[in-house]
This record gives sequence, C-alpha cells and structure tokens, in this order.
Amino acid sequence: MPGTHPIVTLTSDFGTQDHYVAMMKARLLEHCPGVVMVDITHAIGPQDILAGSIMLERAIDGFLPGTIHLAVVDPGVGTSRRILVVQIHQQMVVCPDNGLITWAWRRLGPGQAHELVWRPQVSSFTFHGRDIMAPAAGMLAAGERLEHLSRSIADSVLLDIAPATPDSETATIIHIDVFGNATTNMDAATVKQYGGCEFRLPNGLNVGTLRQSYGGVAPGEPLALIGSSGLLEIAVRNGSAAARLGLKVGNIVRLFR
Amino acid sequence: MPGTHPIVTLTSDFGTQDHYVAMMKARLLEHCPGVVMVDITHAIGPQDILAGSIMLERAIDGFLPGTIHLAVVDPGVGTSRRILVVQIHQQMVVCPDNGLITWAWRRLGPGQAHELVWRPQVSSFTFHGRDIMAPAAGMLAAGERLEHLSRSIADSVLLDIAPATPDSETATIIHIDVFGNATTNMDAATVKQYGGCEFRLPNGLNVGTLRQSYGGVAPGEPLALIGSSGLLEIAVRNGSAAARLGLKVGNIVRLFR
Amino acid sequence: MPGTHPIVTLTSDFGTQDHYVAMMKARLLEHCPGVVMVDITHAIGPQDILAGSIMLERAIDGFLPGTIHLAVVDPGVGTSRRILVVQIHQQMVVCPDNGLITWAWRRLGPGQAHELVWRPQVSSFTFHGRDIMAPAAGMLAAGERLEHLSRSIADSVLLDIAPATPDSETATIIHIDVFGNATTNMDAATVKQYGGCEFRLPNGLNVGTLRQSYGGVAPGEPLALIGSSGLLEIAVRNGSAAARLGLKVGNIVRLFR
Repeated sequence: MPGTHPIVTLTSDFGTQDHYVAMMKARLLEHCPGVVMVDITHAIGPQDILAGSIMLERAIDGFLPGTIHLAVVDPGVGTSRRILVVQIHQQMVVCPDNGLITWAWRRLGPGQAHELVWRPQVSSFTFHGRDIMAPAAGMLAAGERLEHLSRSIADSVLLDIAPATPDSETATIIHIDVFGNATTNMDAATVKQYGGCEFRLPNGLNVGTLRQSYGGVAPGEPLALIGSSGLLEIAVRNGSAAARLGLKVGNIVRLFR
Repeated sequence: MPGTHPIVTLTSDFGTQDHYVAMMKARLLEHCPGVVMVDITHAIGPQDILAGSIMLERAIDGFLPGTIHLAVVDPGVGTSRRILVVQIHQQMVVCPDNGLITWAWRRLGPGQAHELVWRPQVSSFTFHGRDIMAPAAGMLAAGERLEHLSRSIADSVLLDIAPATPDSETATIIHIDVFGNATTNMDAATVKQYGGCEFRLPNGLNVGTLRQSYGGVAPGEPLALIGSSGLLEIAVRNGSAAARLGLKVGNIVRLFR
Repeated sequence: MPGTHPIVTLTSDFGTQDHYVAMMKARLLEHCPGVVMVDITHAIGPQDILAGSIMLERAIDGFLPGTIHLAVVDPGVGTSRRILVVQIHQQMVVCPDNGLITWAWRRLGPGQAHELVWRPQVSSFTFHGRDIMAPAAGMLAAGERLEHLSRSIADSVLLDIAPATPDSETATIIHIDVFGNATTNMDAATVKQYGGCEFRLPNGLNVGTLRQSYGGVAPGEPLALIGSSGLLEIAVRNGSAAARLGLKVGNIVRLFR
C-alpha cells in the first residue's frame, strides 16, 4: 500500500475558515512526508454523522485500492467512543466509531473493523482528528502494519440507514448537493427492477419516468435520473430541485405505475 | 511537458461542499500519480460559463508553459456538445466546447482547438468532468500525445465577449472579486491610449483619473486603477466597491475628459 | 531546510472564490517545483490583520521545524510598508510588516525579523502576495539563503495584543471558530494558576469551573475548557457558543472564586 505516492483523503465538519484541517495535514506530512492529500469536503454540517457517511462512501467508491481515508465528524471527542480503522473495498478508513462508516458498509459491502489502540504520548481532549487519527492515517500511509496499531473488532457502530429495497416502493433523499440535486438511497439496479415506473415527490408532483440525462427535459423542468453516484436523483435542468421543489434530506419519493 | 512535476489546475462550478472535485482528482491521480494539482476556484456560479471563462484566462496567464488546465462548467453534459483540448499560450486546456475558452482566446491570442475523441469504456451521462475530462487531462499530464486522443478542429464555440477597444470609450465590468473590486474588460495599454481621462460609473459618480495603487486615495474612497490582472478596475480602498457603489457584472464604465 | 519535501503553508484574506490563491501557488511552484503546499485558511476577514495573526500562530505551532509560512493580509499593498521574513520557532514566515506576526511572537517567543530586499523585475502595485512574497517563499523553500534576500531589522511592527496575565483576572476572546467555539487569550498554565475558579461571560452567565472536554456537560450546555490551541475556550456542547451566548471577538471573560 505505501507505494511511491500514498494517497490520504480528508472528510470532516471542520469547515475551511479555521486552521483545523491544516493541523491534520501537518501530522500526515510528519508521519508520511511524501503523502498526497486530497480534500473530499470539510463542509459536512457540524456533527452531522449521516451526511459525513454519505460523503465518505463517495470517497471510497471513487479512489483506487490502497487509498487511506481520514474522516472526522466527531461529536463524541473526549468521551470513551472508540476510534476505528476499517478495511473496506481494498482501502482503509480511519474514523471515530460513531456510524460514519455506515453508508460505505451498506453500499460497498461490509468491512473489517479494527479498534485503534495506538495513542500518542500527549493528546488534547478536544481534537483527536489532529492528535490521534491523522498520525495513525499518516503511519498507515507510510507503510506501518495495521496489526501494530489496532485490534480486530466485530461490533463497530452502524447507523439505521440502508439502500432502498424493491419491495419498499419508496426511496429516501439522503443528500442535497450544491446544485440542489437530491440524491436518494435507491441504486440504479433497484430502479430498473421497477421497469418504467414514474416518480412522485412529497408535494404530489409527478416527475415522470426515468431520463438518461439533464438534457431529457426542457430547461427549468424537473426530472428523475440516475446521478453520478449511481443512485436515483431528483433534479431540475439548469436549476435547483431543492429550492424549486422544496426537497430536503429525509423526504420520500414514491414509485408508481 | 510531462516533466517531473506535471501541473494540472482545476476550475469548476462544483463548489467545495460536495465530493465532485475530489472525484476528478482521483482520476487525475489514477492516470498521473505524480501530478501536482492546483485549485483555481470551484465557486463559479452554477452554469456561469462567462465567469468560468474569466477565471480560466487568469489560470492560463498565471501558470508556466506546459501546465494543463481542467475547466468544467458544463450545463450541456449528456447532450451532444463536444469536449475540447485547446493548445493555447504554450499550455493545454481540457473543457467542454461551450465558450469557456473564450476570454483566454481573446486576451492571450487564439489557440488551436482539438475535439477530444477518446472515451472511457463506461461513462455516466451527468458527470463528464470525472468520467472523460479528468482522465484525459491526467493522460496528457502523464505524457500521452494529444494526437492519440483528439483531432484538430476549427469551429470551437466562442462567446460574444472581447476586450474593450479604444474607440468604444467604455469598459464593461466582467468580474467582481471577493473584496468587491470590479474588474473591467479594458487592458492597461488601452487605458493609456486615452491618456489622463477620468472614469464615470453607471450611477453618475466620477472616480477621477487613474491611480497607481489603493493607497492613492483615502480609506473608504473609490478609485480606478490597473488591477493585478492588468485590467482597469474600480475599487474602494479598504472597502467593497461592489457593495458601496452598487456595481455588477455587465455594468458600463465611461471614460471622458 | 530545503529537504526532499519542503512545505509552504498559505494564510490570507483572499477567499477561495477568486484565482488569487492559485496565482501565489503558481509562483511557489515556479521557484520550487517539488514544494508541498498546505492551505491554513483564506477566510480571514478582508484586511483583518488580528484574525490573520491568530491563524498564523496556529500554523507555526502546528508545523515542523523548517516549514515556511506565507501569510498575506495586506491592506497596505502598494504603499511603503516593508515586507518581512521572520525566523521564529525554527520556521520562517514571509508576510507584510503590519503586525501579522504579533500573536506568534507573543505566544511562541520573539523571532528574528528581516526586511525582504529582493524585488522582481516587474511587479504590480496591488498584489505583492503573488509578485514578491510568493516568489520569495518559493526561493527560500528551494534553499536560497535568507541573507541573499533580506537584511536583519529590529523594529518590525507588533500589534497591541498579548496573552492574558494572571493578575488581570480576565481573558479576552480572540477567535470564534466555525463551530462557534470562542477562544480566549489565556493559556492553560495561566488558568491553572487560578486553581478552581469559575468563569463569567459578558452577559453575566457563570459557566462554572473548567471541564476537561465537551463531554463534561450535557448537550446544549455551555462550558469552559482548554481547547485544542492550549487556550481557555468557551463552548456549548454540540452547539454554537457564539450564537447561543452572543459571544464576539473582544468580549471579556471574568475569572472569579
């Protein structure tokens, strides 16, 4: 895994207005001077573990085998919550044991969880991303063996979210992106099993059958399509579905014939 | 061009709250593991091709020969619009063929446009930045020959914008920056040809003759100067010209004696 | 200092919506092609030297010996203000001589200031971050000797801010972070000298004695703790102290028994 250019991605709710992300990068560079660091996002809502979980799955799905992902949305920092290293999808994730790994676990297949037992000589009680998780990710990027830092566990925390199943006849909105597109928890294969159904929004609007791309409707019109995440998405061509249609995370989209 | 540290810059309207930019970086790193990636901005307004065009020109002007620029403001994704690789200013730009290249073409001199004919085995219909353009930019950064990926064309799309000419006696505001400074489409050489003129804003305010720097007026006072882009700029010292003077993209500044 | 992977951090008030930060990175890469660049923040309020000073101290404290910090909050650009290279905490800072270095100087111990005398052949009057400071930082990262670029001085500008002293019985809020946590100017050692005191906010609220972590109070409750900067911090567990308690930079927290 270390290779010539080990990659570590970073996902957090730290924002980019403070120095917090840079402090994690300082520790990554200290433990792995040649590391390539890629920010996924630091705009997760404060302590929004579900939103962080959705973004983390995207990171794991998008990067190559051997990539290490550092994900810190950590409302329990300073309490006894565990810190995990999860082997999943031929990659590794370092994150608090609070459910952040859930969406990746459900969509990409279950991982092998380990409790991080390594601890630095000195740590704050408020910023384990900098003091514990970033150094651990840096050591793993530099080729340290997982067994030296952690022990295998079987009871990592998983949230109560899952991909939509065909018998439910509904999909749930799990993410609103910057364009106002609303991604649901129903994947392309499940949508296909319904074959030619239409989609009804919470406000009663029927957006018709599945389109292939935004170009399938006129500008300003709503549509359903498979988005770039491979999931059912409600969008408005050249506009914001969230703003125009009042969509929010947690809303239900009904499939019908 | 490949060299030891090939540079790829990224400009888009993807924002930084979602994972979209990171997905493009994953593809760049996959095709060119040693690539150095520099974000220009991802805060282009959704589908604002003109604003993207202004930022892309700044990127090309600011970086060294051999740099590759990936620019994705792509409202036509999934339609039949072409994808370009443009050789310009001893650099290369990968972008949709929708006019994004215009401002660079007008200011830095015309480029040589190529239609990208390379396609991946699998692509979404909604995110060609990740599926087609980033891999192409990565391959070019890794030294792939342009002729293997594209064919020369002579009819790339150009928008109806151009630098101000001396006979127009007006300059048009093309960009408002984060400080509220308003950049126009008139370059320093053209301003000089007017020799000692004054500048009148849409609201009738005369901001006087050209100053050398913000320090040329008292704090809080408006001024005209040549900004860091080499273009006529309307500013307020230690303040926001856009907020104080109500300036917007598209507004006309009149030159007079 | 040059080493295999010289690190340059960047702190500014340029925001990330424009191309300004990328222009500095272009110059850094031009002078030091292998440089590793880490953004601290570019969200300093326009011309807010004090806020920039707080972030710069965090950068210097968090990074390793040999790191170079480029800090540009520069309302005096184009005037006769000097540009500094400061040796401090076994690192180097390139910044305008307007007090940006103050908080690091006060907390980490005084530095050795040098006036940058190197100038490029051509420079704008409005963007010395790109034209002078970034090239200088790049040259230093590439191993250029400081004596070739600058001359030692003893009268660099320092702002009128300092860490709280025990006899003051008050701490001043110097930073509000993205979570709404309010950091003060009193360090952990000074708080300890008070031994078991309680903390009163400007609105009269007593937040009790010092807690070890956010978990020391119920969700939604205010608390005082030592934050990740090693300074007294007022927070609300899983909430925003700034929004809930009306805290602002400059507010006074009183210690009492």
